[in-house]
Amino acid sequence: MKAVNGFRVDLPDWVTEFSAKLPVCLPTARERMAAAVSLSEQNVRHDTGGPFGALVVVAATGEVVSLGVNRVEPQLCSAAHAEIVALSLAQRRMGSWSLADTRLGPLQLVSSCEPCAMCLGAIPWSGVHSVLCGAIKADAEAAGFDEGVRPAQWVEALERRGIEVRTGILREPAARVLERYASGGRTIYNP
Amino acid sequence: MKAVNGFRVDLPDWVTEFSAKLPVCLPTARERMAAAVSLSEQNVRHDTGGPFGALVVVAATGEVVSLGVNRVEPQLCSAAHAEIVALSLAQRRMGSWSLADTRLGPLQLVSSCEPCAMCLGAIPWSGVHSVLCGAIKADAEAAGFDEGVRPAQWVEALERRGIEVRTGILREPAARVLERYASGGRTIYNP
Repeated sequence: MKAVNGFRVDLPDWVTEFSAKLPVCLPTARERMAAAVSLSEQNVRHDTGGPFGALVVVAATGEVVSLGVNRVEPQLCSAAHAEIVALSLAQRRMGSWSLADTRLGPLQLVSSCEPCAMCLGAIPWSGVHSVLCGAIKADAEAAGFDEGVRPAQWVEALERRGIEVRTGILREPAARVLERYASGGRTIYNP
Repeated sequence: MKAVNGFRVDLPDWVTEFSAKLPVCLPTARERMAAAVSLSEQNVRHDTGGPFGALVVVAATGEVVSLGVNRVEPQLCSAAHAEIVALSLAQRRMGSWSLADTRLGPLQLVSSCEPCAMCLGAIPWSGVHSVLCGAIKADAEAAGFDEGVRPAQWVEALERRGIEVRTGILREPAARVLERYASGGRTIYNP
Protein backbone atom coordinates (compact mmCIF):
# COMPACT_ATOMS: atom_id res chain seq x y z
CA MET A 1 0.00 0.00 0.00
CA LYS A 2 1.10 3.54 -0.69
CA ALA A 3 2.04 5.54 2.40
CA VAL A 4 -0.26 8.43 3.22
CA ASN A 5 1.50 11.40 4.79
CA GLY A 6 -1.31 13.88 5.16
CA PHE A 7 -5.01 14.41 4.85
CA ARG A 8 -7.07 17.33 3.70
CA VAL A 9 -10.62 18.33 4.51
CA ASP A 10 -12.33 20.75 2.14
CA LEU A 11 -15.65 22.50 2.10
CA PRO A 12 -17.85 21.55 -0.85
CA ASP A 13 -17.90 24.00 -3.76
CA TRP A 14 -21.45 25.24 -3.08
CA VAL A 15 -20.27 26.81 0.20
CA THR A 16 -18.48 29.55 -1.76
CA GLU A 17 -21.79 30.80 -3.14
CA PHE A 18 -23.54 30.26 0.22
CA SER A 19 -20.85 32.31 1.90
CA ALA A 20 -21.10 35.13 -0.66
CA LYS A 21 -24.84 35.46 0.03
CA LEU A 22 -24.49 35.42 3.81
CA PRO A 23 -24.51 38.79 5.59
CA VAL A 24 -21.07 39.77 6.94
CA CYS A 25 -22.52 39.87 10.47
CA LEU A 26 -25.26 37.80 12.10
CA PRO A 27 -26.19 39.85 15.17
CA THR A 28 -28.70 37.56 16.91
CA ALA A 29 -28.51 33.96 18.12
CA ARG A 30 -31.42 33.07 15.83
CA GLU A 31 -29.73 34.53 12.76
CA ARG A 32 -26.53 32.64 13.58
CA MET A 33 -28.45 29.40 14.03
CA ALA A 34 -30.45 29.93 10.86
CA ALA A 35 -27.14 29.96 8.97
CA ALA A 36 -26.00 26.73 10.68
CA VAL A 37 -29.31 25.00 9.92
CA SER A 38 -29.22 26.20 6.34
CA LEU A 39 -25.70 24.73 5.98
CA SER A 40 -26.94 21.39 7.35
CA GLU A 41 -29.89 21.38 4.96
CA GLN A 42 -27.85 22.34 1.90
CA ASN A 43 -25.23 19.74 2.73
CA VAL A 44 -27.89 17.05 2.46
CA ARG A 45 -29.47 18.59 -0.63
CA HIS A 46 -26.11 18.72 -2.44
CA ASP A 47 -25.21 15.21 -1.20
CA THR A 48 -21.90 16.48 0.17
CA GLY A 49 -22.03 14.95 3.66
CA GLY A 50 -24.17 14.40 6.75
CA PRO A 51 -26.96 16.68 8.01
CA PHE A 52 -24.86 18.95 10.20
CA GLY A 53 -23.72 22.54 9.77
CA ALA A 54 -21.66 24.87 11.94
CA LEU A 55 -19.98 28.24 11.90
CA VAL A 56 -17.61 30.30 13.97
CA VAL A 57 -18.53 33.92 14.55
CA VAL A 58 -17.26 36.84 16.58
CA ALA A 59 -19.29 36.51 19.79
CA ALA A 60 -20.02 40.23 20.15
CA THR A 61 -21.00 41.13 16.59
CA GLY A 62 -21.74 37.85 14.80
CA GLU A 63 -19.13 38.57 12.12
CA VAL A 64 -18.65 35.28 10.30
CA VAL A 65 -15.16 33.80 10.65
CA SER A 66 -15.64 30.33 9.16
CA LEU A 67 -18.26 27.86 7.97
CA GLY A 68 -18.32 24.09 8.33
CA VAL A 69 -20.38 21.11 7.22
CA ASN A 70 -20.09 17.40 7.91
CA ARG A 71 -17.64 15.87 5.40
CA VAL A 72 -17.23 12.35 6.84
CA GLU A 73 -18.33 10.28 3.87
CA PRO A 74 -17.07 12.31 0.90
CA GLN A 75 -13.67 12.91 2.48
CA LEU A 76 -13.23 9.49 4.12
CA CYS A 77 -12.64 11.01 7.54
CA SER A 78 -14.74 10.13 10.57
CA ALA A 79 -13.45 13.20 12.40
CA ALA A 80 -14.74 15.62 9.76
CA HIS A 81 -17.81 16.69 11.71
CA ALA A 82 -19.18 20.17 10.99
CA GLU A 83 -17.86 21.56 14.27
CA ILE A 84 -14.32 20.23 13.76
CA VAL A 85 -14.33 21.62 10.21
CA ALA A 86 -15.57 25.09 11.27
CA LEU A 87 -13.15 25.28 14.22
CA SER A 88 -10.16 24.11 12.17
CA LEU A 89 -10.93 26.58 9.37
CA ALA A 90 -11.30 29.41 11.90
CA GLN A 91 -7.92 28.50 13.40
CA ARG A 92 -6.30 28.39 9.99
CA ARG A 93 -7.85 31.75 9.12
CA MET A 94 -6.80 33.38 12.38
CA GLY A 95 -3.32 31.86 12.12
CA SER A 96 -3.48 30.24 15.53
CA TRP A 97 -4.30 26.84 17.00
CA SER A 98 -6.24 28.68 19.70
CA LEU A 99 -9.20 31.00 19.15
CA ALA A 100 -8.93 32.31 22.72
CA ASP A 101 -6.93 35.44 21.94
CA THR A 102 -7.67 36.55 18.43
CA ARG A 103 -7.60 40.16 17.25
CA LEU A 104 -11.36 39.82 16.66
CA GLY A 105 -12.11 39.18 20.34
CA PRO A 106 -13.93 36.17 21.78
CA LEU A 107 -15.29 33.74 19.19
CA GLN A 108 -18.40 31.56 19.28
CA LEU A 109 -19.15 28.14 17.79
CA VAL A 110 -22.66 27.80 16.36
CA SER A 111 -23.80 24.26 15.51
CA SER A 112 -27.03 22.91 14.06
CA CYS A 113 -26.96 20.10 16.65
CA GLU A 114 -25.58 19.52 20.14
CA PRO A 115 -22.01 18.22 19.97
CA CYS A 116 -21.19 14.51 19.96
CA ALA A 117 -18.57 13.31 22.43
CA MET A 118 -15.68 14.06 20.04
CA CYS A 119 -16.82 17.59 19.24
CA LEU A 120 -17.63 18.24 22.89
CA GLY A 121 -14.06 17.26 23.71
CA ALA A 122 -12.75 19.48 20.92
CA ILE A 123 -14.54 22.62 22.14
CA PRO A 124 -12.28 23.47 25.11
CA TRP A 125 -9.12 22.83 23.01
CA SER A 126 -10.37 25.19 20.31
CA GLY A 127 -10.39 28.30 22.47
CA VAL A 128 -13.97 29.37 21.68
CA HIS A 129 -15.71 31.48 24.29
CA SER A 130 -19.25 30.19 23.84
CA VAL A 131 -21.41 27.68 21.99
CA LEU A 132 -24.89 27.85 20.47
CA CYS A 133 -26.66 24.58 19.57
CA GLY A 134 -29.85 23.92 17.58
CA ALA A 135 -31.18 20.35 17.71
CA ILE A 136 -30.71 18.57 21.01
CA LYS A 137 -29.41 15.06 21.85
CA ALA A 138 -32.93 13.58 21.76
CA ASP A 139 -33.43 14.88 18.21
CA ALA A 140 -30.14 13.39 17.03
CA GLU A 141 -30.95 10.08 18.68
CA ALA A 142 -34.49 10.04 17.30
CA ALA A 143 -32.92 10.25 13.83
CA GLY A 144 -30.60 7.34 14.68
CA PHE A 145 -27.42 9.31 15.42
CA ASP A 146 -25.33 8.41 18.42
CA GLU A 147 -23.83 11.18 20.56
CA GLY A 148 -21.17 8.85 21.93
CA VAL A 149 -19.27 8.56 25.22
CA ARG A 150 -20.28 11.94 26.62
CA PRO A 151 -20.75 13.03 30.24
CA ALA A 152 -24.45 13.62 31.03
CA GLN A 153 -23.72 17.04 32.57
CA TRP A 154 -21.84 18.33 29.53
CA VAL A 155 -23.29 21.86 29.58
CA GLU A 156 -22.19 22.33 33.19
CA ALA A 157 -18.79 20.79 32.38
CA LEU A 158 -18.20 23.37 29.63
CA GLU A 159 -19.50 26.20 31.78
CA ARG A 160 -17.09 25.23 34.57
CA ARG A 161 -14.38 25.84 31.96
CA GLY A 162 -15.78 29.30 31.27
CA ILE A 163 -17.52 28.36 28.01
CA GLU A 164 -21.14 29.56 27.85
CA VAL A 165 -23.65 27.19 26.23
CA ARG A 166 -27.14 27.83 24.87
CA THR A 167 -29.01 24.98 23.27
CA GLY A 168 -32.34 24.32 21.56
CA ILE A 169 -32.15 27.50 19.43
CA LEU A 170 -34.37 26.98 16.35
CA ARG A 171 -34.64 23.41 17.59
CA GLU A 172 -37.57 22.46 15.36
CA PRO A 173 -36.12 23.43 11.98
CA ALA A 174 -32.74 22.01 13.04
CA ALA A 175 -34.31 18.69 14.06
CA ARG A 176 -36.37 18.55 10.86
CA VAL A 177 -33.17 18.36 8.79
CA LEU A 178 -32.06 15.31 10.82
CA GLU A 179 -35.46 13.64 10.50
CA ARG A 180 -35.60 14.13 6.76
CA TYR A 181 -32.08 12.76 6.35
CA ALA A 182 -32.90 9.67 8.41
CA SER A 183 -36.24 9.04 6.72
CA GLY A 184 -34.43 9.25 3.37
CA GLY A 185 -32.48 6.11 4.34
CA ARG A 186 -29.13 7.89 4.30
CA THR A 187 -25.97 6.70 6.04
CA ILE A 188 -25.91 6.99 9.80
CA TYR A 189 -22.27 6.85 10.91
CA ASN A 190 -21.05 3.93 13.01
CA PRO A 191 -24.04 3.15 15.19
CA MET B 1 -9.73 38.39 5.46
CA LYS B 2 -9.24 35.73 2.84
CA ALA B 3 -11.75 32.88 2.96
CA VAL B 4 -10.32 29.51 3.93
CA ASN B 5 -12.04 26.57 2.22
CA GLY B 6 -10.03 23.66 3.50
CA PHE B 7 -7.34 22.57 5.89
CA ARG B 8 -4.59 20.01 5.62
CA VAL B 9 -2.74 18.10 8.30
CA ASP B 10 0.60 16.57 7.32
CA LEU B 11 3.09 14.37 9.07
CA PRO B 12 6.49 15.99 9.53
CA ASP B 13 9.19 14.97 7.02
CA TRP B 14 11.20 12.88 9.52
CA VAL B 15 8.31 10.39 9.75
CA THR B 16 9.16 9.09 6.25
CA GLU B 17 12.55 7.88 7.47
CA PHE B 18 11.06 6.65 10.77
CA SER B 19 8.49 4.68 8.83
CA ALA B 20 11.11 3.14 6.52
CA LYS B 21 13.06 1.84 9.53
CA LEU B 22 10.02 0.40 11.29
CA PRO B 23 9.36 -3.33 10.87
CA VAL B 24 6.36 -4.07 8.63
CA CYS B 25 4.67 -5.90 11.54
CA LEU B 26 4.80 -5.25 15.28
CA PRO B 27 3.50 -8.51 16.75
CA THR B 28 3.35 -7.68 20.49
CA ALA B 29 1.63 -4.91 22.45
CA ARG B 30 5.01 -3.78 23.77
CA GLU B 31 6.50 -3.48 20.28
CA ARG B 32 3.49 -1.51 19.11
CA MET B 33 3.71 0.82 22.09
CA ALA B 34 7.47 1.24 21.70
CA ALA B 35 6.76 2.64 18.22
CA ALA B 36 4.13 5.06 19.59
CA VAL B 37 6.45 6.26 22.36
CA SER B 38 9.31 6.65 19.90
CA LEU B 39 7.04 8.80 17.69
CA SER B 40 6.15 10.99 20.70
CA GLU B 41 9.82 11.39 21.63
CA GLN B 42 10.99 12.17 18.11
CA ASN B 43 8.17 14.68 17.65
CA VAL B 44 9.53 16.66 20.58
CA ARG B 45 13.15 16.23 19.49
CA HIS B 46 12.38 17.51 15.99
CA ASP B 47 10.20 20.31 17.39
CA THR B 48 7.31 19.29 15.14
CA GLY B 49 4.50 19.20 17.71
CA GLY B 50 3.47 18.02 21.16
CA PRO B 51 4.75 14.92 22.98
CA PHE B 52 2.23 12.42 21.64
CA GLY B 53 2.51 9.61 19.10
CA ALA B 54 0.05 7.06 17.77
CA LEU B 55 -0.31 4.41 15.11
CA VAL B 56 -2.97 2.20 13.61
CA VAL B 57 -2.09 -1.46 13.13
CA VAL B 58 -3.84 -4.63 12.07
CA ALA B 59 -4.99 -6.04 15.41
CA ALA B 60 -4.05 -9.65 14.63
CA THR B 61 -0.60 -9.18 13.13
CA GLY B 62 0.56 -5.70 14.06
CA GLU B 63 1.02 -4.73 10.41
CA VAL B 64 1.42 -0.95 10.44
CA VAL B 65 -1.36 0.90 8.63
CA SER B 66 -0.62 4.52 9.59
CA LEU B 67 1.44 6.69 11.92
CA GLY B 68 0.46 9.90 13.70
CA VAL B 69 2.00 12.59 15.85
CA ASN B 70 0.58 15.68 17.50
CA ARG B 71 0.59 18.56 14.98
CA VAL B 72 -1.44 21.18 16.88
CA GLU B 73 1.07 24.02 16.97
CA PRO B 74 2.88 23.67 13.64
CA GLN B 75 -0.34 23.16 11.69
CA LEU B 76 -2.52 25.63 13.62
CA CYS B 77 -5.15 23.00 14.37
CA SER B 78 -6.24 22.14 17.90
CA ALA B 79 -7.83 18.91 16.65
CA ALA B 80 -4.56 17.58 15.21
CA HIS B 81 -3.85 15.22 18.11
CA ALA B 82 -1.74 12.14 17.33
CA GLU B 83 -4.75 9.81 17.51
CA ILE B 84 -6.90 11.91 15.15
CA VAL B 85 -3.97 12.12 12.71
CA ALA B 86 -3.28 8.35 12.80
CA LEU B 87 -6.97 7.46 12.47
CA SER B 88 -7.58 9.93 9.64
CA LEU B 89 -4.52 8.71 7.73
CA ALA B 90 -5.60 5.08 8.20
CA GLN B 91 -9.06 5.94 6.84
CA ARG B 92 -7.57 7.75 3.87
CA ARG B 93 -5.25 4.81 3.20
CA MET B 94 -8.03 2.22 3.47
CA GLY B 95 -10.34 4.38 1.36
CA SER B 96 -13.12 4.41 3.95
CA TRP B 97 -14.37 6.68 6.70
CA SER B 98 -14.77 3.55 8.84
CA LEU B 99 -12.03 1.13 9.80
CA ALA B 100 -14.60 -1.44 10.96
CA ASP B 101 -14.68 -3.52 7.79
CA THR B 102 -11.37 -3.22 6.02
CA ARG B 103 -9.82 -5.97 3.88
CA LEU B 104 -7.05 -6.16 6.50
CA GLY B 105 -9.45 -7.24 9.27
CA PRO B 106 -9.97 -5.49 12.61
CA LEU B 107 -7.66 -2.54 13.27
CA GLN B 108 -6.16 -1.25 16.50
CA LEU B 109 -5.26 2.26 17.67
CA VAL B 110 -2.02 2.46 19.66
CA SER B 111 -1.37 5.73 21.50
CA SER B 112 1.51 6.88 23.68
CA CYS B 113 -1.02 8.35 26.15
CA GLU B 114 -4.62 7.72 27.20
CA PRO B 115 -7.02 9.67 24.98
CA CYS B 116 -8.26 13.13 25.88
CA ALA B 117 -12.02 13.71 25.73
CA MET B 118 -11.93 14.59 22.01
CA CYS B 119 -9.90 11.55 20.99
CA LEU B 120 -11.98 9.31 23.25
CA GLY B 121 -15.06 10.57 21.44
CA ALA B 122 -13.38 9.99 18.08
CA ILE B 123 -12.52 6.33 18.77
CA PRO B 124 -16.01 4.81 18.32
CA TRP B 125 -16.57 6.86 15.13
CA SER B 126 -13.30 5.61 13.64
CA GLY B 127 -14.29 1.95 13.55
CA VAL B 128 -11.21 0.61 15.36
CA HIS B 129 -11.62 -2.68 17.17
CA SER B 130 -9.28 -2.07 20.11
CA VAL B 131 -7.04 0.52 21.75
CA LEU B 132 -3.65 0.30 23.47
CA CYS B 133 -2.51 3.21 25.65
CA GLY B 134 0.87 3.99 27.24
CA ALA B 135 0.93 6.85 29.75
CA ILE B 136 -2.19 7.19 31.88
CA LYS B 137 -4.33 10.22 32.78
CA ALA B 138 -2.33 10.89 35.96
CA ASP B 139 0.89 11.09 33.92
CA ALA B 140 -0.61 13.54 31.44
CA GLU B 141 -2.01 15.66 34.27
CA ALA B 142 1.29 15.56 36.20
CA ALA B 143 2.91 17.09 33.09
CA GLY B 144 0.21 19.81 32.99
CA PHE B 145 -1.97 18.38 30.23
CA ASP B 146 -5.71 18.36 30.62
CA GLU B 147 -7.70 15.32 29.51
CA GLY B 148 -10.89 17.37 29.21
CA VAL B 149 -14.59 16.67 29.66
CA ARG B 150 -14.33 12.87 29.77
CA PRO B 151 -16.51 10.33 31.60
CA ALA B 152 -14.63 8.75 34.52
CA GLN B 153 -15.56 5.23 33.39
CA TRP B 154 -14.24 5.70 29.87
CA VAL B 155 -12.65 2.24 29.53
CA GLU B 156 -15.94 0.56 30.43
CA ALA B 157 -17.81 2.93 28.10
CA LEU B 158 -15.62 1.89 25.14
CA GLU B 159 -15.85 -1.77 26.11
CA ARG B 160 -19.64 -1.57 26.17
CA ARG B 161 -19.31 -0.51 22.54
CA GLY B 162 -17.23 -3.59 21.79
CA ILE B 163 -13.87 -1.77 21.77
CA GLU B 164 -11.20 -3.50 23.89
CA VAL B 165 -8.87 -1.23 25.87
CA ARG B 166 -5.50 -1.94 27.48
CA THR B 167 -3.69 0.89 29.19
CA GLY B 168 -0.41 1.51 31.05
CA ILE B 169 1.68 -0.42 28.48
CA LEU B 170 5.29 0.87 28.72
CA ARG B 171 3.83 3.48 31.03
CA GLU B 172 7.17 4.67 32.42
CA PRO B 173 8.96 5.48 29.15
CA ALA B 174 5.74 6.97 27.78
CA ALA B 175 5.31 9.21 30.84
CA ARG B 176 8.96 10.24 30.73
CA VAL B 177 8.44 11.88 27.33
CA LEU B 178 5.61 13.97 28.82
CA GLU B 179 7.68 14.92 31.86
CA ARG B 180 10.67 15.98 29.80
CA TYR B 181 8.46 18.06 27.52
CA ALA B 182 6.83 19.81 30.47
CA SER B 183 10.08 20.40 32.33
CA GLY B 184 11.47 21.94 29.13
CA GLY B 185 8.89 24.72 29.46
CA ARG B 186 7.13 23.80 26.21
CA THR B 187 3.60 24.78 25.26
CA ILE B 188 0.80 23.01 27.08
CA TYR B 189 -2.36 23.41 24.99
CA ASN B 190 -5.26 25.40 26.37
CA PRO B 191 -5.10 24.58 30.04
